[in-house]
Amino acid sequence: MRPGLILKLSSPDQSGIVAKIASYVASHRGNLIEFNQFSDRVGKKFFARLEIDTSDLDVTVEDFKTGFGTLGRSLQATWHYRTLPYKMRTAVLVTKTDHCLNEILLRTELGELPIEITSLIGNRDNCAPIAERAGIPFHHIEMDDDLREKGFREIRNLLVDQNVELIVLARFMQILPDSFCQEFSGKIINIHHSFLPAFIGANPYRQAHERGVKLIGATCHYVTADLDAGPIIEQEVERVSHFHSPADLSRLGRHCERIALAKGIRYHVHDRTLIDGHRAIVFPD
Amino acid sequence: MRPGLILKLSSPDQSGIVAKIASYVASHRGNLIEFNQFSDRVGKKFFARLEIDTSDLDVTVEDFKTGFGTLGRSLQATWHYRTLPYKMRTAVLVTKTDHCLNEILLRTELGELPIEITSLIGNRDNCAPIAERAGIPFHHIEMDDDLREKGFREIRNLLVDQNVELIVLARFMQILPDSFCQEFSGKIINIHHSFLPAFIGANPYRQAHERGVKLIGATCHYVTADLDAGPIIEQEVERVSHFHSPADLSRLGRHCERIALAKGIRYHVHDRTLIDGHRAIVFPD
Amino acid sequence: MRPGLILKLSSPDQSGIVAKIASYVASHRGNLIEFNQFSDRVGKKFFARLEIDTSDLDVTVEDFKTGFGTLGRSLQATWHYRTLPYKMRTAVLVTKTDHCLNEILLRTELGELPIEITSLIGNRDNCAPIAERAGIPFHHIEMDDDLREKGFREIRNLLVDQNVELIVLARFMQILPDSFCQEFSGKIINIHHSFLPAFIGANPYRQAHERGVKLIGATCHYVTADLDAGPIIEQEVERVSHFHSPADLSRLGRHCERIALAKGIRYHVHDRTLIDGHRAIVFPD
Amino acid sequence: MRPGLILKLSSPDQSGIVAKIASYVASHRGNLIEFNQFSDRVGKKFFARLEIDTSDLDVTVEDFKTGFGTLGRSLQATWHYRTLPYKMRTAVLVTKTDHCLNEILLRTELGELPIEITSLIGNRDNCAPIAERAGIPFHHIEMDDDLREKGFREIRNLLVDQNVELIVLARFMQILPDSFCQEFSGKIINIHHSFLPAFIGANPYRQAHERGVKLIGATCHYVTADLDAGPIIEQEVERVSHFHSPADLSRLGRHCERIALAKGIRYHVHDRTLIDGHRAIVFPD
Repeated sequence: MRPGLILKLSSPDQSGIVAKIASYVASHRGNLIEFNQFSDRVGKKFFARLEIDTSDLDVTVEDFKTGFGTLGRSLQATWHYRTLPYKMRTAVLVTKTDHCLNEILLRTELGELPIEITSLIGNRDNCAPIAERAGIPFHHIEMDDDLREKGFREIRNLLVDQNVELIVLARFMQILPDSFCQEFSGKIINIHHSFLPAFIGANPYRQAHERGVKLIGATCHYVTADLDAGPIIEQEVERVSHFHSPADLSRLGRHCERIALAKGIRYHVHDRTLIDGHRAIVFPD
Repeated sequence: MRPGLILKLSSPDQSGIVAKIASYVASHRGNLIEFNQFSDRVGKKFFARLEIDTSDLDVTVEDFKTGFGTLGRSLQATWHYRTLPYKMRTAVLVTKTDHCLNEILLRTELGELPIEITSLIGNRDNCAPIAERAGIPFHHIEMDDDLREKGFREIRNLLVDQNVELIVLARFMQILPDSFCQEFSGKIINIHHSFLPAFIGANPYRQAHERGVKLIGATCHYVTADLDAGPIIEQEVERVSHFHSPADLSRLGRHCERIALAKGIRYHVHDRTLIDGHRAIVFPD
Repeated sequence: MRPGLILKLSSPDQSGIVAKIASYVASHRGNLIEFNQFSDRVGKKFFARLEIDTSDLDVTVEDFKTGFGTLGRSLQATWHYRTLPYKMRTAVLVTKTDHCLNEILLRTELGELPIEITSLIGNRDNCAPIAERAGIPFHHIEMDDDLREKGFREIRNLLVDQNVELIVLARFMQILPDSFCQEFSGKIINIHHSFLPAFIGANPYRQAHERGVKLIGATCHYVTADLDAGPIIEQEVERVSHFHSPADLSRLGRHCERIALAKGIRYHVHDRTLIDGHRAIVFPD
Repeated sequence: MRPGLILKLSSPDQSGIVAKIASYVASHRGNLIEFNQFSDRVGKKFFARLEIDTSDLDVTVEDFKTGFGTLGRSLQATWHYRTLPYKMRTAVLVTKTDHCLNEILLRTELGELPIEITSLIGNRDNCAPIAERAGIPFHHIEMDDDLREKGFREIRNLLVDQNVELIVLARFMQILPDSFCQEFSGKIINIHHSFLPAFIGANPYRQAHERGVKLIGATCHYVTADLDAGPIIEQEVERVSHFHSPADLSRLGRHCERIALAKGIRYHVHDRTLIDGHRAIVFPD
């Protein structure tokens, strides 16, 4: 990851907006490494992501960012800067299964995900050995029955203490309280083990088997208070047949889950996503 | 298509069934060109499709078929024979759009679909010129409002008169009466313009756009009285993005519809499908 | 297709280039419908495609285009304007098989390809009936043995007379002379029936069968004097298995060919491609 | 994995062969869990894989296997039995990169690959920590320059001592000696980082970038003395674009490599592959 800046921005769509933004960057000798934008004709909104090489800037990076404020406000924009290189402070929440967790660890080691896993949190302790092996603190938080509310308070406090920017639900089998979803809005990524919006709810692989579908899938999405209806970041499918048992579908689905979640996290941590109501704008790499 | 026989069979699963069936074929010097079978552990059923070269048979084809009855009954099987080569008598029902119809015509000309289109039936006359060009009788049957019931009676009579074995709904925008679905059960194939069971109902591409899905699809299925819940034969998906307007999704979906429908029809007319409750067992080629 | 302009541009990569181009458009109240650009770090080149809504321009479209010259020259750019809506004058060259031709006709009727087919040219007359049905002039040009050179002269004269902008080789089984490739450089699109660069040369489906590949494909590419090595526009693959005969591979390959060619033509006629040596930069929709 | 037997068989194609095999199984009350067969019309060969539940056999498993000999010889067949459950003794050979190795470990832990990794062998020591973490003996064998021949002798002796049934080249960057390929014929699986037969040889991702391909891939194949020409077991592709640098292609290719290798190994260790000259017959699950 090169030194530089990523600027994410959304605003009402308006004439000349690309010129204004690109001109600001050029006026300070910022060099555009990548510039993605999207003018939504239907919603009349503008979305952009700029990756800027700052090595030739004629001002400090801080002044560059501050100076953008005047333009940003005149565009009625919402924007976000990230200084490169960086590692996103990330918590991973799990229950029993570990295939998604292992995929995240593997991709992180391969240098594909610029994250620092500050903690692994489980309402079961099955994944504790993996955390130990990877040198990550593991927090076993009991959440059954009466302990659920207390458990979420503990998790919340952990995340706040550790200044976490991303919470990955890697097959975490607990429904989040609304207040939790709201406090960490736009920072929680889930992997749903079906091709949403089909098979909402429990045991989608059994549902898929009974229905005899010819493709199964997985959906990586932001979590909102509205269960399984958060903005979709990535989806994967795999072809299946009548001879696949529910266990086979589960195995093939696991594969989709690993891929969709890994891609979804990658897009998020590289600031390639912008949330727009029920949708996510994604500029993939 | 070689001369020969296709045998489709389903029965309760039981020990030695493959040996019994294959031995019967061998005992009369039938040559197995292809033999697909599936033992469903969950439902405890057995499904098979045999393609038999009959050129060396030591009995007539009729005697061969008759002789199978004793075995078939002892297996408590349901079975179906088809003599090759053949062309399946097919009616295509349309409304306005013609992309699925054209795909069927194109594949038929390419020799990929052994069908004879006995008639093209439309509740609009938009596709009449295509029928004329292809030399197929076109029946324009008004079905709006009060005419719906009468229209379906007319269609039903046409199909019965023409001894039709397959009814393809190629974007036919009318909901079939239950009695119609029952009379032609297992003979009606529909193309649904979404990745079922997601987006059941009207305007799935608009629904997909609003939901920001990353994959859209189409589903080819048998029609039952239960709307959009018939056994799935084939599904296709295409990757999409935020920049695709509802019109773009419609264009890309059209592509999925053409492919899924053409494959679904091919599997049906080659007797590669067996209906099992809400599922279809499909042995693709 | 909305009224407007498409600007395609390539130049040496340089600081501030996006700002300069976007500012020119904005300075005359052009509205950016779509803006794709790519800075090639390796080759140090810049490529862009702009789709501009011209309804609010403060100058005439001609003045807008002329005015761009000063900027374009200062950027050492090569550029190309197209006024919307338009239909690209296209010739289709065929031999015997017609599946690619039919796909082109079908997509054109569906409004997916803004082309006007000025003529269909065949070195066999197999496709003449299709031309007649579609109301397109058919030119049967004998090219066997001694007639090859004369044949290409006739084709060349036809294309020049008709002011053709695009030449589609829709399974045209003749190798083009170098001079022909050069004269129509960047205007000839071919569909190769394999996943290039594998299986260069004749009978790729037989080669694929002997090699037991698990995926077959088709490649749509620009034609250069270097056989099968022209810039690739689009590629499609289909999963295959040992039970697929060479004839089956041919059928499945036909499917890949139709899709890859249709997409490739679409990208070309919407000016979504820029040729860069052996590569094509493609901004898909 | 259920107790039982897998029978793999190939023979000249002949009338009644399915009946004979299935009848033998049924005659001893073997229960067919799965029966895949393929009659190759071109090569006039027959291939089959049977998975047999042996719990109701009326003879011992050993007698069942022995008894098959009379039939097998009369069919001029080659056959192979495997008793379930089992774990295939496997050696993994690596150099520096570990993504394929990690994928194998992950899938093994998930219960998707019934293998026992007897040793990890590296001509570099980069993967030693992974071996240690996983509790697998690591053998660092120097193979540079003059040490190559001696190195392969050491590896050969290790594999023989450990009675290894499968040798996985998980990005092992050494060309195997012919004698080695022959001694372990049909037991060596390699992952080639391109979509064979395209881009044979070194640095395929750079080749792919220069050629501007729109799809990249990976190929899992058996190793023969003929470099990169061994029977293909599985292939995977991923869509790419002009904006992907060679490093991006490498990252996306890594993904294809992991998937293709994991699937290829799975098919092999479940005896779902039969080698037929330059091809592999694969019955996937």
